[in-house]
Amino acid sequence: MCKNKLKILRPCVIGLGYVGLPILVNLSKKYNSSGYDINKQRIVELKKGIDIFGVFKKNNFNKNINFYSDSNKISSYNFFIVTVPTPILKNKKPDLSHIKDVCLTISKVIKRGDIIVFESTVYPGVTDNFCIPLIEKNCALKNGVDFFVGYSPERVNPGDNKHQLKKINKILAYPHNYKKKYILKLYSLLGKKIILTKNIKEAETAKVIENIQRDVNIGLINEIFLACSNLKLNFSNIIKLASTKWNFLKFKPGLVGGHCLPVDPYYFSYICKKKKFNTKITLAGRYINDQMAQVVKDIIKSKLKEMKLKKNTKILICGLTYKKNVADLRNSLALKILKMFKNKNKYIKGFDPLIDSKTAKNNGLFTNANQIKNFDVFIVLTNHSKMKKILKKVNKNKIIIPI
Amino acid sequence: MCKNKLKILRPCVIGLGYVGLPILVNLSKKYNSSGYDINKQRIVELKKGIDIFGVFKKNNFNKNINFYSDSNKISSYNFFIVTVPTPILKNKKPDLSHIKDVCLTISKVIKRGDIIVFESTVYPGVTDNFCIPLIEKNCALKNGVDFFVGYSPERVNPGDNKHQLKKINKILAYPHNYKKKYILKLYSLLGKKIILTKNIKEAETAKVIENIQRDVNIGLINEIFLACSNLKLNFSNIIKLASTKWNFLKFKPGLVGGHCLPVDPYYFSYICKKKKFNTKITLAGRYINDQMAQVVKDIIKSKLKEMKLKKNTKILICGLTYKKNVADLRNSLALKILKMFKNKNKYIKGFDPLIDSKTAKNNGLFTNANQIKNFDVFIVLTNHSKMKKILKKVNKNKIIIPI
Repeated sequence: MCKNKLKILRPCVIGLGYVGLPILVNLSKKYNSSGYDINKQRIVELKKGIDIFGVFKKNNFNKNINFYSDSNKISSYNFFIVTVPTPILKNKKPDLSHIKDVCLTISKVIKRGDIIVFESTVYPGVTDNFCIPLIEKNCALKNGVDFFVGYSPERVNPGDNKHQLKKINKILAYPHNYKKKYILKLYSLLGKKIILTKNIKEAETAKVIENIQRDVNIGLINEIFLACSNLKLNFSNIIKLASTKWNFLKFKPGLVGGHCLPVDPYYFSYICKKKKFNTKITLAGRYINDQMAQVVKDIIKSKLKEMKLKKNTKILICGLTYKKNVADLRNSLALKILKMFKNKNKYIKGFDPLIDSKTAKNNGLFTNANQIKNFDVFIVLTNHSKMKKILKKVNKNKIIIPI
Repeated sequence: MCKNKLKILRPCVIGLGYVGLPILVNLSKKYNSSGYDINKQRIVELKKGIDIFGVFKKNNFNKNINFYSDSNKISSYNFFIVTVPTPILKNKKPDLSHIKDVCLTISKVIKRGDIIVFESTVYPGVTDNFCIPLIEKNCALKNGVDFFVGYSPERVNPGDNKHQLKKINKILAYPHNYKKKYILKLYSLLGKKIILTKNIKEAETAKVIENIQRDVNIGLINEIFLACSNLKLNFSNIIKLASTKWNFLKFKPGLVGGHCLPVDPYYFSYICKKKKFNTKITLAGRYINDQMAQVVKDIIKSKLKEMKLKKNTKILICGLTYKKNVADLRNSLALKILKMFKNKNKYIKGFDPLIDSKTAKNNGLFTNANQIKNFDVFIVLTNHSKMKKILKKVNKNKIIIPI
């Protein structure tokens, strides 16, 4: 056991996206903390108190926080929380490049007695069989002896105020005794209740199956939506009827975007396949959910056709982020649909009141609600809570909500 | 509109299985009712007050009930509730033969002003496009003019006391004005709240998707169970961890038998395919759930192997009905597993404390808990609430609960 015991944990959050930033903000309430991101632009903005996702304002960042984009600066910290993205490659296989880069960075700054907790969603085994060996190999220190690795799956649900960090339970897998009490105290800032366990692989699996279950259920409801449309049945009436049963689960059909649901099923299938187990249901949601952009586009097309519009009718697609009430355009199927239309019709534009002006400009979108008066027809894709108020003055017959 | 209005509804329940019998018992509290079944044996037993499924006792059957196996006897009734089975054929396509037979029977006894409510689970369109035309063709009367057809999906959950008929909501699709008030009054005996709607196809669909959702979710959890076993991960620990998330759905892995879940997904897929829509998720649960008998058999085999038993060790498989706390052996995967073993090992026997002695004898099973003392090892498949008490005196190390 390492003898160089720490008196105080000095946390550094690596990766300041929608997962890392709330962690850092909460930690800074009690700890001298730092946030590190390779995206220099993001660090410049955060230093100015700007969060382009609109979740945090300047006054959320207190004096305890230091932002860095230079990895040399984080070597004075001793508790690393890793929240970098774990996307998929074009061939749908796990893209562990960000995790790999972080492990290499950590192996350069790590000291005897340091602690690392990974929070990125991965398949079971990534922490034990990929991250730890990579760090050990590059720093000549040993996990469990010189440094100590844990895993705590993030459960951030962007756009959902009800389930913010401090309101939900959080799993922490930490198989060591070293500084356990201190870590638990620190983690108590990051969850309502911390569920401590020793098995990292179990915690990794728990996270990935939560998202798979959600993806499959939305996939099934999308399939039922499509089937009803095919059978000329009123989907929403049917759901109302089915919902009168005590155990019917009210999932909604829709466009599944973002960084978790469209990704995590591939992570789990990947490791299963590698171990010679072919999943059958895990990816079934993906098949349907990936189709939905095309399906919604077709619905819009046929609704526009019914309206018999003039060629130069100005159409505005409203709500473009990957889900309701978030300011994040990445992996958005709504944006994908807009692009499909824009390629063929120059009178179709996009509007989202939540995204920052720079991102809007880069994507050729409006953010100012005053501009909607220049349009004739409104297609609502990502139905932000704000949207109703914004479209209040618009003729109801000119609003299309395709799904 | 038929002028021959009825003063009193005289209900006749056609098909006295686990769905029809509770309906009949509840109706008899207020109505002079009859129950009709083509199974003469069942009628003989019911007349004696015997329900082989053990749900009803002699004192549940009051003087208001008449039991018939002769269809001529039901012509004096005017309100027919159809609760016959709708299974699948060997090729997994819908087997509507029982429904067809009932329609032919009804067309012989039907009179002007009669009402028919179908309760059997079907795919959308069966009532409107199959049953009604069949009756009309054979009786020269017209639905909506001479007689009146509705649909009310059964939601009987055998073995579940919490969700008995009068404790749950019930959908009634009845697209006519004729006697609506009287029918609603009658149906108020069959549900906590009656959700009245006019669209039969929507009610048919609502029912079938409720069961598909359940089957897919159990299928997914079975898949995760299998994946964990393959990846050498502790499934139950993982589920405990995942369950700490606010929206994780706690389905249990297991053997899915019975008359609904293994059947209904095929009904819906059938009509979708006929309308050129190929479902992708609807049947995904079936694929996994159908495999589970073999999987559980293999688990048992390897557990028995670990125990290094003598060849003549007496093994008892306990709990054989298709689900917990029911006395119904039909479509039971537990029974299927027992048969797999019995074919190869004469020292393996089956025991179920809930089934009636006649059915037990026909299947070569024990029902008497005293006989378990003659056995050495106990494999629990269908874990009835009673089972714990029965196996209390048995050495815990000799009990295997494979799933």
